[in-house]
Amino acid sequence: MAESKGISNVIDLNRIQVTDTFWKKEIELVRDTVIPYQWEALNDRVPDAQPSYCMHNYKVAGKINRKIEQEADYIQPVHTTNGFCVWPENPKEPEERFYGFVFQDSDFSKWIEAVAYILRQYPNPELEKTADEAIEIVYRAQQPDGYLDTFYIINDISKRFTNLRDHHELYCLGHLIEGAVAYYQATGKDRLLGVACRYADCVAEHFGPETGKLHGYPGHEIAEMALAKLYAVTGQERYRDLGLYFINERGKRPYFFDMEHPLDAKENEKLRYQYHQAHLPVREQTEAVGHAVRAVYLYSGMADFARLTSDEELKAACERLWDDITQKKMYITGGIGSTHIGEAFSFAYDLPNDTVYAETCASIGMIFFAQRMLEMCPNSKYADIMERELYNIVLGGMGLDGTSFFYVNPLEVVPEACHKDSRKEHVKPVRQKWFGCACCPPNLARLVGSIGSYVFTETEDTVFVHLYMGIQMEKKLESDSVRIDMQSGFPWNGNVSIRVECETEETFTIALRIPSWGRNFRINGIENAAAQEKDGYLYLTKAWKSDVLQIEFPMEIQVLEADSRVRENIGKAAVMRGPVVYCMEEADNGKDMHLLKMDEDASFETEEKKIALESVIAIRAQGWRQRKAQNAGLYFAYDKIEYERTELTWIPYYAWANRGEGEMQVWTRI
Amino acid sequence: MAESKGISNVIDLNRIQVTDTFWKKEIELVRDTVIPYQWEALNDRVPDAQPSYCMHNYKVAGKINRKIEQEADYIQPVHTTNGFCVWPENPKEPEERFYGFVFQDSDFSKWIEAVAYILRQYPNPELEKTADEAIEIVYRAQQPDGYLDTFYIINDISKRFTNLRDHHELYCLGHLIEGAVAYYQATGKDRLLGVACRYADCVAEHFGPETGKLHGYPGHEIAEMALAKLYAVTGQERYRDLGLYFINERGKRPYFFDMEHPLDAKENEKLRYQYHQAHLPVREQTEAVGHAVRAVYLYSGMADFARLTSDEELKAACERLWDDITQKKMYITGGIGSTHIGEAFSFAYDLPNDTVYAETCASIGMIFFAQRMLEMCPNSKYADIMERELYNIVLGGMGLDGTSFFYVNPLEVVPEACHKDSRKEHVKPVRQKWFGCACCPPNLARLVGSIGSYVFTETEDTVFVHLYMGIQMEKKLESDSVRIDMQSGFPWNGNVSIRVECETEETFTIALRIPSWGRNFRINGIENAAAQEKDGYLYLTKAWKSDVLQIEFPMEIQVLEADSRVRENIGKAAVMRGPVVYCMEEADNGKDMHLLKMDEDASFETEEKKIALESVIAIRAQGWRQRKAQNAGLYFAYDKIEYERTELTWIPYYAWANRGEGEMQVWTRI
Repeated sequence: MAESKGISNVIDLNRIQVTDTFWKKEIELVRDTVIPYQWEALNDRVPDAQPSYCMHNYKVAGKINRKIEQEADYIQPVHTTNGFCVWPENPKEPEERFYGFVFQDSDFSKWIEAVAYILRQYPNPELEKTADEAIEIVYRAQQPDGYLDTFYIINDISKRFTNLRDHHELYCLGHLIEGAVAYYQATGKDRLLGVACRYADCVAEHFGPETGKLHGYPGHEIAEMALAKLYAVTGQERYRDLGLYFINERGKRPYFFDMEHPLDAKENEKLRYQYHQAHLPVREQTEAVGHAVRAVYLYSGMADFARLTSDEELKAACERLWDDITQKKMYITGGIGSTHIGEAFSFAYDLPNDTVYAETCASIGMIFFAQRMLEMCPNSKYADIMERELYNIVLGGMGLDGTSFFYVNPLEVVPEACHKDSRKEHVKPVRQKWFGCACCPPNLARLVGSIGSYVFTETEDTVFVHLYMGIQMEKKLESDSVRIDMQSGFPWNGNVSIRVECETEETFTIALRIPSWGRNFRINGIENAAAQEKDGYLYLTKAWKSDVLQIEFPMEIQVLEADSRVRENIGKAAVMRGPVVYCMEEADNGKDMHLLKMDEDASFETEEKKIALESVIAIRAQGWRQRKAQNAGLYFAYDKIEYERTELTWIPYYAWANRGEGEMQVWTRI
Repeated sequence: MAESKGISNVIDLNRIQVTDTFWKKEIELVRDTVIPYQWEALNDRVPDAQPSYCMHNYKVAGKINRKIEQEADYIQPVHTTNGFCVWPENPKEPEERFYGFVFQDSDFSKWIEAVAYILRQYPNPELEKTADEAIEIVYRAQQPDGYLDTFYIINDISKRFTNLRDHHELYCLGHLIEGAVAYYQATGKDRLLGVACRYADCVAEHFGPETGKLHGYPGHEIAEMALAKLYAVTGQERYRDLGLYFINERGKRPYFFDMEHPLDAKENEKLRYQYHQAHLPVREQTEAVGHAVRAVYLYSGMADFARLTSDEELKAACERLWDDITQKKMYITGGIGSTHIGEAFSFAYDLPNDTVYAETCASIGMIFFAQRMLEMCPNSKYADIMERELYNIVLGGMGLDGTSFFYVNPLEVVPEACHKDSRKEHVKPVRQKWFGCACCPPNLARLVGSIGSYVFTETEDTVFVHLYMGIQMEKKLESDSVRIDMQSGFPWNGNVSIRVECETEETFTIALRIPSWGRNFRINGIENAAAQEKDGYLYLTKAWKSDVLQIEFPMEIQVLEADSRVRENIGKAAVMRGPVVYCMEEADNGKDMHLLKMDEDASFETEEKKIALESVIAIRAQGWRQRKAQNAGLYFAYDKIEYERTELTWIPYYAWANRGEGEMQVWTRI
């Protein structure tokens, strides 16, 4: 039997083709709707939406660099008076100002990354031309020394790197690298990669352990994992060293942020350091704290560097933080960050369903983290969470129309409360159009666009299958290549077939993840294989030639309860089927769903159901509706609770809020 | 049989003596601890507490008025750098500045009102001397034209009455009147009453329907009910007219506050008008909205003027608003205002137990409102709520030590959540010391100090008994006087005896409230009386000479449920005994009280229990504790819930948080 020989690697998208019908329509939604819509948004051409100003800012920065010689119409007049983040001093003509959030540059980077993933799978010369032109605008905005953050270029270059905590120069660097690497890998064009390298070089000039350099680190993490990627692509150790420096410097005392910012008596330690995960050196951190997106982006970077430098201490920290999140701070949907105040982790087992935050981007970050943990140690607990995030938060974060999005992913919604209760105004009962702070939609686009890269990892002699979907992959062996063609009925049925084709017989290992919900699987086609289960993977080693594995994961309906320390779920249960979390909606179950009660002994049935244009599997069971207790006054003598029979209907959580505004709940009394 | 001949009146405290052992110790706590502590606070002499600056500001204002001729040490140096509300222009020497909130003047007024109530019952020349000296300081601060708000006197008198919405000149007028009337009634001294009249005259000069006057009204209500009181004491119709003008003007369009304040696109109608109950003319209002204290202060004033002017439309509005609060927006404890955002009413049936606001002052305002509704129409529904507020929020608002207070009165507390969850940081698990914004503690002091005045109202021939407590009262009849001496075991037992003594036989009516929880009462001593029940009162008419009524209200333990539209209480029950709401504390029931479950068929027992130095009746019953469900991961296959037997212990809600920090809950699963 074979087992993991250490590190496995993510497979390049060039060797992958997603064929899955379920996911393909999501990818095509990104291709046909999200990316074009996003490009209009970047250029402030979406009617009734808050302008992005992203491309505007790059153009203004380019003009400042004098790379632009009076090109007509290069900068459009700005039709707005409500610009934000306008620099207080140094007044400029309206069309030469910076507009938008300090991190507005990253809108482009996320877009180009999604474009790159799409171009790999669907060549499109027109889109590539648009992308190349956009890259040209960004290229011109770069300063001679490589610096590239339009907020400071436009407003006051002398102030750069003076507010790492709150401003986003290094965040923008991170996204620029991610976009540039993806575009380079997709097209082979290195113009944007050059821009990213020069900006990274400029940052490396200013940050590091040497005297005279800044001993700082990003206020919003992402540069860490981006630099690991840049190192992988370029082989330049200075990028690895810079990323590792950021990782190592974070949380050291005296706090870098304290040197930047005068201490404020009103600010407590939590707000000041935990928000940025800068309260302790990363290797000493044991609890996931602060802004959830920042946290999981950091942990992803830590995992990258633990792998790249074989740093066991760093790896152990990653494992601790992973377990802290998944065992104490994660909603059943995969949502993380339970409070909107600071978009942050709350405390262990504090998982309110209705005042929840659970930002879409945080779940996307959790997928990045999971992928990196899988590279280090193939354990199905990581892939299980990746799958949970994908089929629930990621899918649910985008409307079936591709132009509406959830930032906050609640598990219980009463629309009246969202509208009338200020404590819940961050919870929206319907998906929203593009936001000024457009983090989640482009993050969804780049994730969905690259979903194929999360399915496998590989070592020299092993292919790990972490997710099941229709996909084709080629693996080079020493003298031969293997073609793997997977088909799957996920998420509606658990049937998977994996066809393995080699020119000549080749001995290697295929390691199949056994999902936590599908341990009673059946498998055919392994007659001559050595089989062993380890850490939730079934390792199958044999001489493969032309084989078909047939696996059947039982997609049984699971009624689940939460650890009893989760107060909000006491006496309640939730329903899953395979990787899909289910919820009840008012459209099927009527109003006042808090009156509903599941029957412990009910039998469940599935049925196909149309939600908007989507065909899903719904679940039905007999249950109870508590008779309304209404009497004189609000409070009255308790009477034995009476219930009447009712049918309960659940639909996949991801499909909620596609039928107008109504109540929704994941957890129901039992 | 007799029935109410229209309006009944509150009985002057001079004719009342509280003898009740239960309430007397509360009154003595106010006398011995709260009032002296508060005086120190007003003079910034409480170590480690935020200074009030109240007397400081009066002194500075007095100096500006040139009534002070260089008296040594009149104004103490200010030992602070963190003054707030400092006027931006017009810099002054530190010792000549205004400090504190804009409504800081009212600290004195609330204090003098509590002092007055105490002096009536416990003559104390030394306290009276201190009070007279304080009054002198306030007297000197008054401007020649009667104006008296130190914030504007010190900062810029030309700006007065330019920000009625956010500043508190008319609020301070209201409290000044309330304090002045009480002190006049207690001591016969009219120096402060004169100050109040002159300030009211000054306001009347500036506000009214005439051209050239301001057509405004208070941003924070109280002046309305205060002016009704000033009218009652002085007989001057101009005070009635001014109060009525404020009532009538509120909510008219165009909004007065819009003329004061430029419209802000970000502010919604709710924030801008509902917060101040200025969204509609008061007679058209049907729902209690906005800041809860302001709301019930307004409604109290509306009730005053409905009574004084026999305005049926205004009375109907009061009845609607009363019913809206008590039938849709009130906690079982009597708490109102369920959200901390705006300290405001939320929407109907939105009564979360843990993120609750339920400010102590709002419940005190509800008592004012109830008393005024009782004057107009004796219906036990008003007195029931008064009683509920007194025995639960009012008692619970003050620690058994008299120097710690709750502003927020939660029905469910998990200390960890208060400390770690920013959404609950307004909820304190233990009572707090004096606050900079000291509204609740002095409000509690003036309420408890005058509690005797809430027990009765009277008409010419009827004495209404609204509350049961040890108290003596004298009523003048045409030729005779009646002495009523009530004894009661409230709140621990429902035995009440009422001794009626007249010189000669006198025919009149005693109307006894029948509490909603005590309808199965027994009564002795009514052999020769005509008895009739109406609107929750038992009217007893006879020729009284020397009689004793013996009433026994059954203090049975009541298990209560909430209207099923209160989502947070679904599947839960609460316990009351007589007027007292009970709660469970960790000290008796252990941690993780969300695991507890009441047994529908359990029998309840009472027992005496010491909580700090207080002896209370506790309640015990057999119940259940859910076995902890903890497994691999946060979520796992649902298993039939198992419970183990446990004993549940409840203590009176008002006595909670006197045994250190721990969990508390009013509503328990059943």
